[in-house]
Amino acid sequence: MPELNGNLLVAQSGGPTSVINASVAGVIVEAGHHECIEEILGGQNGILGILNEELIDLGDEKARTIEGLKYTPAAALGTCRYKIDFKKKPEKAAKDMDRLFEVFQAHNIRYFFYAGGNDSQDTAHKIHLEAVKRGYEMRVMGVPKTIDNDLPATDHCPGYGSVVKYNCATVQEIGLDVGSMATDDGSCCIVEVMGRAAGWIAAGTVLAKQGHAANPPHIILLPEIALNEEAFLNLVKDTIAAYKYCIVVVGEGLKNTAGEEIGADKSRLDAFGHPVLSGAADALAQIVQGKLNLKTRTVKLGYAQRAAAHFASQTDADEAFACGAAAVKAAVNGQSGFMPKIVRTSSQPYRWAIELEPLENIANVEHFIPRDWISENGFLPNEKFVEYAAPLVVGEVKVPMINGLPQYVSLTRSPVEKTLPPRG
Amino acid sequence: MPELNGNLLVAQSGGPTSVINASVAGVIVEAGHHECIEEILGGQNGILGILNEELIDLGDEKARTIEGLKYTPAAALGTCRYKIDFKKKPEKAAKDMDRLFEVFQAHNIRYFFYAGGNDSQDTAHKIHLEAVKRGYEMRVMGVPKTIDNDLPATDHCPGYGSVVKYNCATVQEIGLDVGSMATDDGSCCIVEVMGRAAGWIAAGTVLAKQGHAANPPHIILLPEIALNEEAFLNLVKDTIAAYKYCIVVVGEGLKNTAGEEIGADKSRLDAFGHPVLSGAADALAQIVQGKLNLKTRTVKLGYAQRAAAHFASQTDADEAFACGAAAVKAAVNGQSGFMPKIVRTSSQPYRWAIELEPLENIANVEHFIPRDWISENGFLPNEKFVEYAAPLVVGEVKVPMINGLPQYVSLTRSPVEKTLPPRG
Repeated sequence: MPELNGNLLVAQSGGPTSVINASVAGVIVEAGHHECIEEILGGQNGILGILNEELIDLGDEKARTIEGLKYTPAAALGTCRYKIDFKKKPEKAAKDMDRLFEVFQAHNIRYFFYAGGNDSQDTAHKIHLEAVKRGYEMRVMGVPKTIDNDLPATDHCPGYGSVVKYNCATVQEIGLDVGSMATDDGSCCIVEVMGRAAGWIAAGTVLAKQGHAANPPHIILLPEIALNEEAFLNLVKDTIAAYKYCIVVVGEGLKNTAGEEIGADKSRLDAFGHPVLSGAADALAQIVQGKLNLKTRTVKLGYAQRAAAHFASQTDADEAFACGAAAVKAAVNGQSGFMPKIVRTSSQPYRWAIELEPLENIANVEHFIPRDWISENGFLPNEKFVEYAAPLVVGEVKVPMINGLPQYVSLTRSPVEKTLPPRG
Repeated sequence: MPELNGNLLVAQSGGPTSVINASVAGVIVEAGHHECIEEILGGQNGILGILNEELIDLGDEKARTIEGLKYTPAAALGTCRYKIDFKKKPEKAAKDMDRLFEVFQAHNIRYFFYAGGNDSQDTAHKIHLEAVKRGYEMRVMGVPKTIDNDLPATDHCPGYGSVVKYNCATVQEIGLDVGSMATDDGSCCIVEVMGRAAGWIAAGTVLAKQGHAANPPHIILLPEIALNEEAFLNLVKDTIAAYKYCIVVVGEGLKNTAGEEIGADKSRLDAFGHPVLSGAADALAQIVQGKLNLKTRTVKLGYAQRAAAHFASQTDADEAFACGAAAVKAAVNGQSGFMPKIVRTSSQPYRWAIELEPLENIANVEHFIPRDWISENGFLPNEKFVEYAAPLVVGEVKVPMINGLPQYVSLTRSPVEKTLPPRG
């Protein structure tokens, strides 16, 4: 494969994580080692910014800032939810694709890296195919990123270990708090976590138990398993009888037996005619408080969990960086249309390697928890899941503190001069 | 004052904090230095456990466990919401008081320390008065504890600095996350924090701005100031126009101009006839999303914030320990009926000392944010508040980690043999 000289473009897409910037740092640092890569550019707000020719010169950033990306949460380049919709809007998608290649050509982009989840891997795949079709020499790589951990082929996804680590500490702490207040009346606390239709994040909190049945969380409700309300309420009662308190973790996408999301209450509209925002935890709290007459409180961590870099996993940050760096190495070696994936070679001690997976195997495939990693009654992941998840939370990312608060970095975002007419 | 020989009893009351155990450690460690203190006992679940003669022998705990209390959140002795209601139930209160002194006498309790908020200081005060009245020689001290920071006389309360530190990091992180996703449509995130009727916790998140107007939080809604909905919505609009995103922090006790709590929606009942649990953030989100048609998400940190020892303030933990130790020193020196308070001698550099305040000045007095510490429009604390709060979050408590998760301690709770008939 002949050496390909030209510029590099990296962009981020979808919901941020604590370590998606570490992947960008991996791309930038590795790119600096290869003379064939001339300028290192960033696309602002993902594909949307590239369509608008909003590029920034990452070569202008200080080395200290790039180093700081390793511990700075959220998407330093900006991200977007914009999707090139090849299925439903093929004409618009074709126009977007034309525009993307105008931008690539205008800035001599020969290396393109897109960090994101399922949709973004699909976009990267389509761009790779289009480059081949057009005979435009370019190396396109996806970089895995999602707290939801629902990408196939990879053992797990960068971003997942950190959200699990933070959520576990939070559940341990809430458990101590609620447990210390528990008197004979009992009390229940329901913690809602993210993950959409996949239960990986909710399941991850099982590590907080640290092998002791008495430790919280006592019940984990996974979106993969429809809520059996009666069995759930009986288990809450049994837990209260045993420990005087009960900590429940619920994945936001939990469904009832009719397949409807528990948290989306369509039966109630607010003053403006919109459905009442209830959320899975609040909906469950009403059931528990109403049917068991048990004091019940809720916690909804929301965006806090995926951005909690002050308690991120070093293992996760290392892997995120390695995925970014591996994508560059592979591209420089002539590969295109792949995503670096994490391959586990051993759980105890934990060992991993990076290999490449063709993007066509990733795009739009969702990966759920195997049923045999969940206890028979469906209310807790089992020891197979624990063996899987435990290594991913190890190590603490060190964040510099000034006056007691984290000092995250931000890019100066020095703009690259536009050379094209505005997007039509 | 003659030396008083006898046993010591310490108990915790009300909602836990990240550092209430540090105060108990301060009591235990200091007590170990005084020969007049014979046994060191703990009351389980506050006054309720003492009434039930549920005492534990803290002398049986390992030194390492006592050391671990300095970084372990929640109430290691257990806590309660039980209140001796002298006003509304004077007969029951008198009976409770008789029982307490039976327990004190049965176990030769001559030193009693009660860590808690307003109600608990009132209880400690009543016990002090009763001991004097009965001629039962005993030294009674309150130990300040409340995340709400609403005790009078003391500069601030142990527990407050840690909740502010964690909430600030969380707001910084959520701000980076939401800001990085912000495109022209704009987006809003509303973070609900604790503090009941007092806005100290909500106000504390102003430190996350680190002096930059563009940094989140952009708006802080304090329970001290009735919500002006129109002015609030205009400010959200202006913020979106300036930064494309808006982070709002709301104290859970925020009220409307009619004096009703925003979060307690009495107009809607659930299937069981209970009021819908909505919460201030969700109620505001409906207003923002409905009236501004702006994508709005909520975060409700709940118990997570007051138990977040993985990111507690070392300053706070040091002060909590010092308050416990100071209470013992004062008691050994013959004082009774006081609470150690934190006196600030300088803000820059931050210097503090412990003095004593008579319990009668503390009990049932609530302390709110001075109006002149809040900006004219009421939507942000000003530089006077920042000067006050900034030193309280400095330093990070070191928590031992095993396999990436905090290793908090728990007491073995070796029970003291009961000698009394059960409580009538």
